[in-house]
Amino acid sequence: MERARVVIVGGGFGGLEAARALGGKPVEVTLIDRRNFHLFQPLLYQVATGGLSEADIAAPLRAILKGWPNITVRLGTAVDLNPEARLLLLEEREAVPYDFLILAAGSRHHYFGHPEWEPEAPGLKTLEDALEVRRRVFLAFEEAERVRDPQEQGAWLRFVIAGGGPTGVELAGALGELTRGTLPGEFRRIRPESAEIVLVEAQERLLPGYRPAASARATRALNRLGVRVLTKTRVLEISSQGVRLQQGEKETILAARTVLWAAGNRAAPLTQTLQERCGATLDRNGRVFVREDLSLPHHPEIFIVGDTASVRSPSGDPLPAIAPVAVQEGRYAARAILARMRGERLQPFRYRSPGAMAVIGRHEAVVQTGRGVVFGGFLAWLVWLLVHIRALVGFENKLVVFVRWAWSYFTRNPGSRLILDLPEKGEPQ
Amino acid sequence: MERARVVIVGGGFGGLEAARALGGKPVEVTLIDRRNFHLFQPLLYQVATGGLSEADIAAPLRAILKGWPNITVRLGTAVDLNPEARLLLLEEREAVPYDFLILAAGSRHHYFGHPEWEPEAPGLKTLEDALEVRRRVFLAFEEAERVRDPQEQGAWLRFVIAGGGPTGVELAGALGELTRGTLPGEFRRIRPESAEIVLVEAQERLLPGYRPAASARATRALNRLGVRVLTKTRVLEISSQGVRLQQGEKETILAARTVLWAAGNRAAPLTQTLQERCGATLDRNGRVFVREDLSLPHHPEIFIVGDTASVRSPSGDPLPAIAPVAVQEGRYAARAILARMRGERLQPFRYRSPGAMAVIGRHEAVVQTGRGVVFGGFLAWLVWLLVHIRALVGFENKLVVFVRWAWSYFTRNPGSRLILDLPEKGEPQ
Repeated sequence: MERARVVIVGGGFGGLEAARALGGKPVEVTLIDRRNFHLFQPLLYQVATGGLSEADIAAPLRAILKGWPNITVRLGTAVDLNPEARLLLLEEREAVPYDFLILAAGSRHHYFGHPEWEPEAPGLKTLEDALEVRRRVFLAFEEAERVRDPQEQGAWLRFVIAGGGPTGVELAGALGELTRGTLPGEFRRIRPESAEIVLVEAQERLLPGYRPAASARATRALNRLGVRVLTKTRVLEISSQGVRLQQGEKETILAARTVLWAAGNRAAPLTQTLQERCGATLDRNGRVFVREDLSLPHHPEIFIVGDTASVRSPSGDPLPAIAPVAVQEGRYAARAILARMRGERLQPFRYRSPGAMAVIGRHEAVVQTGRGVVFGGFLAWLVWLLVHIRALVGFENKLVVFVRWAWSYFTRNPGSRLILDLPEKGEPQ
Repeated sequence: MERARVVIVGGGFGGLEAARALGGKPVEVTLIDRRNFHLFQPLLYQVATGGLSEADIAAPLRAILKGWPNITVRLGTAVDLNPEARLLLLEEREAVPYDFLILAAGSRHHYFGHPEWEPEAPGLKTLEDALEVRRRVFLAFEEAERVRDPQEQGAWLRFVIAGGGPTGVELAGALGELTRGTLPGEFRRIRPESAEIVLVEAQERLLPGYRPAASARATRALNRLGVRVLTKTRVLEISSQGVRLQQGEKETILAARTVLWAAGNRAAPLTQTLQERCGATLDRNGRVFVREDLSLPHHPEIFIVGDTASVRSPSGDPLPAIAPVAVQEGRYAARAILARMRGERLQPFRYRSPGAMAVIGRHEAVVQTGRGVVFGGFLAWLVWLLVHIRALVGFENKLVVFVRWAWSYFTRNPGSRLILDLPEKGEPQ
């Protein structure tokens, strides 16, 4: 008998975990991703602020999975689906047949109906995004050092971050550390520590998904790093000159040359294909509603995991688009397929929260345990560090990341602050 | 009395060493570079083949020089010169006044009158170059795995390197290690170890600047890694399909999708400005002929160092465009300026060769000492490793590079093999 063919779309947390759970099992697995590496997205903000290098948070998919002969890795872009013939169609004009499909295609940032804001305020989802943010941040200090007009200098030294969720909080904290800890002394005309970092959140507190105690702790820690936190504040407009904000009745204009977007997620466009071809229902963020075993209604052979799936917790809230959710869903989908092949059925998927955390500075973080206990300070930072290093894929990365962090912890001298001019080739002078 | 203003153009080996030698001395130093980092160019081929990450071989100029308050770092592109008014003109429309100028602007690869070859055969001078080569190399294996036609597969698995100097030799060796040591087992349809690496050199032996014994050793070591060495062979044509070669009377066409250029250097265009504005004389590679104290004839206030200077050794040969030459020249120029200010004169510049080396594989290198003794094998590799780690700027980089290398030495698993799609933004599936 032919072995069942499992095709996984996406090598992020969900897809990679599904592949691992199927490694060595009696199935033929094909993992398709448009990139040749797995990316540890929760640390992207560290690349964006020069604390880590790209290679520290990425590992080649082929290297991770080479030990399982039943897993094939393919570089390719899934663009369409034929559910009757059970074929996944690639942009490279190939059809990949499947018996089971696991869709783990991730998400992209989302500008709430303002796509024109994207060039002005880049988000942070891919390594290319992080390199672009890094380029803008470090170029801003160079420009501030170059210009003479105090107003222009101020606009180069003002950084606005839209979105007070974990990404926005961590990015603001990292910028605070950069301007207060790392850069002072490196410039001759400007004082990097005078840079103004503004974190804008529409809801009434930072980290709206966390407990209020965690939000309060995060706000205090950010204030200590010089970050201005504006809650209940909406972004009305973003341009190359800055932002227009609305706080209650009041409108404010902030002149800022660097605006960063950490506000919204939207599932990958492939979910719309599922809507058209399989009658899938999507939530307002483009995520697919799934059955309690994470499969698509009327298509028990298609599983949706990670940021592309809309799964409700027992309390009724949708599960957040974070790595632990994707990992548990990916593992569950793999087990569900193996159970199905044995003629068995698993218990419905249930997310077990390991808690939530956000790092704010060099020895400051906020941790909320699975049971809702909130703590902060150095201990929280240590917990955060250990959890993240442990989770980094591949032993080499862990070691290098640890050395780099230990070093920058003692010296305040992040070594990855390169301004790479990527669209054009660099020419010598 | 106003302190003398020394302006240095270029933060490579020559310019950085000059700046360091002037740190804390009674002069005002401005170091101008279009990049915000110093690049350890001799290890670029390691980035191009996935053995090291960009940040491992680059360090921010501001961080390196921040300890000397008399040194200012400026991001900028020098484009012109007014030698009468002693002004350096930047692309950013600024004029920087100087009392002494040290030109250390480096070089770019050179296609011997065939600029149309550049898109087909990228060279290896900047980090962007290395990322582009890395992208092409790793994409070639992905394409070979994807296509079904054996001829097309062969063309994707054939790598041609033009130029058998140190860069070409090291690049060929690194590709040999990659295909024979690292990648086997990661693909399902192709055997990476069947990839053909062809190193083309016009002269009659590899490493023409080294002793014949070193050339012979390098050739043997490369052959062991499966590299085909074609000497006395000229490149007639490069296209997206491959190369046309001439060996004696014979013409050969090699179908190859990846052609890399390691053949020629040309000094930065700023030397032409010196020719126009100061009557400087250039050699055929665009390098400036200098006096015995490295200053420009008729312009004792302008010094030229590194790849932009044409300096003859006592034997009459021009000094090669390598890091040790640039370092010694940069240091000499700084001392010459300080001596001039004291009303003294230095002895003429004299290069003290520390020897030459090229690494070929995981424990294989060729070393030629300053006295001309040639040795190879593991000991040479160890010498090469220690010299390069010692020379890497900044302690953090040394440690990380060492960890990464030690790790990849034991595991054959270089961790920086990311295919970054830099011109366009990556989108999720």
